[in-house]
Amino acid sequence: MEKTFPQASDTINRLIQELAKLPGVGPKSAQRLTYYLLRAPVEQTQALAEALMALKSKTQLCVSCFNIADGELCPICRNTQRKTSQILVVEQPQDILALEHMALYKGQYHVLHGAISPTEGVGAGDIRIKELMRRLSAGGVTEVIVGTNPTVEGETTSMYLKRLIAPLGIRVTRLARGLPFGTELEYADDMTLSRAIEGRQEF
Amino acid sequence: MEKTFPQASDTINRLIQELAKLPGVGPKSAQRLTYYLLRAPVEQTQALAEALMALKSKTQLCVSCFNIADGELCPICRNTQRKTSQILVVEQPQDILALEHMALYKGQYHVLHGAISPTEGVGAGDIRIKELMRRLSAGGVTEVIVGTNPTVEGETTSMYLKRLIAPLGIRVTRLARGLPFGTELEYADDMTLSRAIEGRQEF
Repeated sequence: MEKTFPQASDTINRLIQELAKLPGVGPKSAQRLTYYLLRAPVEQTQALAEALMALKSKTQLCVSCFNIADGELCPICRNTQRKTSQILVVEQPQDILALEHMALYKGQYHVLHGAISPTEGVGAGDIRIKELMRRLSAGGVTEVIVGTNPTVEGETTSMYLKRLIAPLGIRVTRLARGLPFGTELEYADDMTLSRAIEGRQEF
Repeated sequence: MEKTFPQASDTINRLIQELAKLPGVGPKSAQRLTYYLLRAPVEQTQALAEALMALKSKTQLCVSCFNIADGELCPICRNTQRKTSQILVVEQPQDILALEHMALYKGQYHVLHGAISPTEGVGAGDIRIKELMRRLSAGGVTEVIVGTNPTVEGETTSMYLKRLIAPLGIRVTRLARGLPFGTELEYADDMTLSRAIEGRQEF
């Protein structure tokens, strides 16, 4: 990753190294991107550099749902057309983008910024659960949909939230587990198949 | 490519769009890179932004070989350990990096910044051929190795250079054409096979 080319200019080596630190960008593509940018208009390189700087200086966490926001509230919390009776709880801000892609869900979100993981020393107090409970205690929410990942950590977090929220008389549901669309049964792993059988639905 | 997410912050959308303009970076990976950078240390994002800006402000073309340089001369022309009797002519600066990778060649380079292409209106006067001839007329060069691409444009350029340089009494060679290492004959294309037969070597 930190490989440099003594035959190339220092400036070029520096950009190749910085690009190669990005996930999914190997030394070869870092090199290709660098030479592409060398030939691209200066405006394009500048716009990219400025967008990078803005990412850190202009964004903050939404004071309500902890999604990424340009101001106090994120675009979803600012949107008065959305239902306030449902909150979908996710682990990361990027999960919201994936879910919003279908434009199916019209309620609110809450970003935990992680999941409970005893092995990594992440407890309930380390993620935004307190803040979720504060939102629920303000009233008006009738359903919490848990959208944590179908991993050990996600499942642990989901069980924890269920125990915490159900006593408040709020409905707690979670995203269905089962066979992903477009796959073949024969290639599904054991866990996915178990969940598909357990969660079988009337149709 | 210009797809935006109305549910995401403007700052995030801006970076996703700029990253998606890069070759080989689709909207999905632009999104993944953006959320990765959001969580990365601010120093990393800053270093990347600064390296991008430096690429345009701190580099220039080497006054001798037209490779990318941080100053007047590129690292290869500055290196006094290299032979000055050979010049390897390439189309683009990135070709030098590929060739230097093996540390086999110890001579000089010359970057044409293109190849002759009648269909795209690129003539001999549009690439750095004049500058190459000026270097040759200064004396001391005994061999020019033509390393243009094995494409129609590269071959045209190579024939043009051969006709121009041979009368000066300088040896003109070109990189061997043939079967690439590690491939199977059965999958080689007709042109590659023709070149492999024509250029067959004693062993």
